[in-house]
Amino acid sequence: MAEQTTFTIAVVGATGAVGQKIVQLLEERDMPIGELKLLSSKRSAGKKVRFKNEELTVEEAAPESFENVDIALFSAGGSISKKLAPEAVERGAVVVDNTSAYRLDDQVPLVVPEVNEDDLQSHNGIIANPNCSTIQMVAILKPIQEAFGLNRVIVSTYQAVSGSGNEACDELEEQTRQYMNGDEMTADQLPVKGDEKHFPIAFNALPQIDSFQENGYTFEEMKMIHESKKILHDQKLAIAATCVRLPIFTSHAESVYAEVENNDLTVNDIQDELERANGVVVEDDPTTQTYPTPLSAEGKEDVFAGRIRKDLDNDYGFHFWIVSDNLIKGAALNTIQIAERLIHNKWL
Amino acid sequence: MAEQTTFTIAVVGATGAVGQKIVQLLEERDMPIGELKLLSSKRSAGKKVRFKNEELTVEEAAPESFENVDIALFSAGGSISKKLAPEAVERGAVVVDNTSAYRLDDQVPLVVPEVNEDDLQSHNGIIANPNCSTIQMVAILKPIQEAFGLNRVIVSTYQAVSGSGNEACDELEEQTRQYMNGDEMTADQLPVKGDEKHFPIAFNALPQIDSFQENGYTFEEMKMIHESKKILHDQKLAIAATCVRLPIFTSHAESVYAEVENNDLTVNDIQDELERANGVVVEDDPTTQTYPTPLSAEGKEDVFAGRIRKDLDNDYGFHFWIVSDNLIKGAALNTIQIAERLIHNKWL
Repeated sequence: MAEQTTFTIAVVGATGAVGQKIVQLLEERDMPIGELKLLSSKRSAGKKVRFKNEELTVEEAAPESFENVDIALFSAGGSISKKLAPEAVERGAVVVDNTSAYRLDDQVPLVVPEVNEDDLQSHNGIIANPNCSTIQMVAILKPIQEAFGLNRVIVSTYQAVSGSGNEACDELEEQTRQYMNGDEMTADQLPVKGDEKHFPIAFNALPQIDSFQENGYTFEEMKMIHESKKILHDQKLAIAATCVRLPIFTSHAESVYAEVENNDLTVNDIQDELERANGVVVEDDPTTQTYPTPLSAEGKEDVFAGRIRKDLDNDYGFHFWIVSDNLIKGAALNTIQIAERLIHNKWL
Repeated sequence: MAEQTTFTIAVVGATGAVGQKIVQLLEERDMPIGELKLLSSKRSAGKKVRFKNEELTVEEAAPESFENVDIALFSAGGSISKKLAPEAVERGAVVVDNTSAYRLDDQVPLVVPEVNEDDLQSHNGIIANPNCSTIQMVAILKPIQEAFGLNRVIVSTYQAVSGSGNEACDELEEQTRQYMNGDEMTADQLPVKGDEKHFPIAFNALPQIDSFQENGYTFEEMKMIHESKKILHDQKLAIAATCVRLPIFTSHAESVYAEVENNDLTVNDIQDELERANGVVVEDDPTTQTYPTPLSAEGKEDVFAGRIRKDLDNDYGFHFWIVSDNLIKGAALNTIQIAERLIHNKWL
């Protein structure tokens, strides 16, 4: 039997913030796509999207949509994934799911290719793409864990509104206009569309991303904790997270404190290790004010690390400031990279 | 000799972001002011300022300006304080200095009245007002230290541009307009006016507040570390800080991790202790999305604490989200409160 050389790819949620970015990146990359199917909710069906000089029509996603699909990239929300991903798998597709629906399922690998590509081999039709804030953190923690051991992580995030979708971006824009015009700001999207209270994000900071859990942490914080342990293969790793939404359109930043198992390391040792890591770029020189920011990382594919400092009291501790475009490596790019590695390794 | 019942107060830097707030708060409070002298640089001299139905003219600050002044409130930058505070003291005034010029001087008490009022007694003419980001943090750490012991603090800040002065606020406003109009953003104030590079703050986050020190930490980060140890009377306290400037006009927020000496505390124990503390308001109920934000704290006098959670791995560790108006408790109010306590205790 001849080797398969082109693949039918479906994008579910093609008109959302992440779905649009997936289509854009698929156009830029050289994945061997035979056919691209764009799927969405009924509301967005019928929309036209340009892809490589063709005009594609977005179709309403249904179980039958996945006939003859090789890889289905889902980013239309957890409930759509729960309903349609099994239908896609039943019809022979491999699903890369960008929602939280399957991330902690023992049967589903949770993968950042630079970190745990081998986990892809054990898939049963579904592979989960981690949360945006998790991806960029494990990208820097993995090389450190491998080289120096890793015992403990405390992270405070600085997250962009695009992580909450296009409507949250529109809200930030509208509130910014209202504030600048001296009008009262109106809010109905953030912190969580479905929650009771909404607060303005413009010129503000909201210490709530996703809903609160019974233990007082938000779901976003628990996602970072559980997903990092799974991806780093260390359920005993101590991790704490505080997740904060900010008036930034694109790129998440994180202030990360990490304790290694080695108490005689220098900042240079850490920088050298991160410079060797795939997908990580070190931008770190205080003497020239060199460090990443959300705007400097926007539109780029890497995870940027700067402000690397040794803790002043704990010889095992280091502080980092890491930034990455939450829609690219944090979502669309990592999803596509998973598909690319599946194809490359013949693990479909 | 009759007891002194009214006092001559001088405000140095009366036209700056903090100076304006000091004048506004002096008008609202019932400090027994006999005469108010407003002083500034040559550039701002001659400006008129309303105070309690009088129109006061701002004068250029000079050594002779402090003749007959009882209390001089300085917030015109470190170099002005270094030059003129000793002149004021020589003429019999007590100086409350809102710059970093004297904060770590062993001869100068560094005071947040709710935290270490008694330190005022040892002054030699100058009392230092701590950095804005320090004040709100020690306000919550002190009651915890007293009740439960305190070993370790890791803080990541979310700081407003007004901490960098009126021109930084103007820059955020101008950049916001430029961005919304699709124009390129121009920057010449932040992160540090005197540094070589400037970056836009609008829709961005800058992990640099004040200049870099030789150890890779910024001066702002080292201020938080050194000042907190001095105010909390514990040079052995382990503290690390990462300070970040955000597109927020007013109020600093901080994600604080603190380790106590007691491993069987609950979140309720911490909340109860903070609720008893002067100047601290607990706004903390995940079930009703109750937590402070920069906008909710703006214009208020207290330090607000929310998102109090026990660490999931360390029984000694707790996480906090604290917010306070950086121009009020973080600067002008604390300065005035120091003066009020000096008068009340007859410690002038």
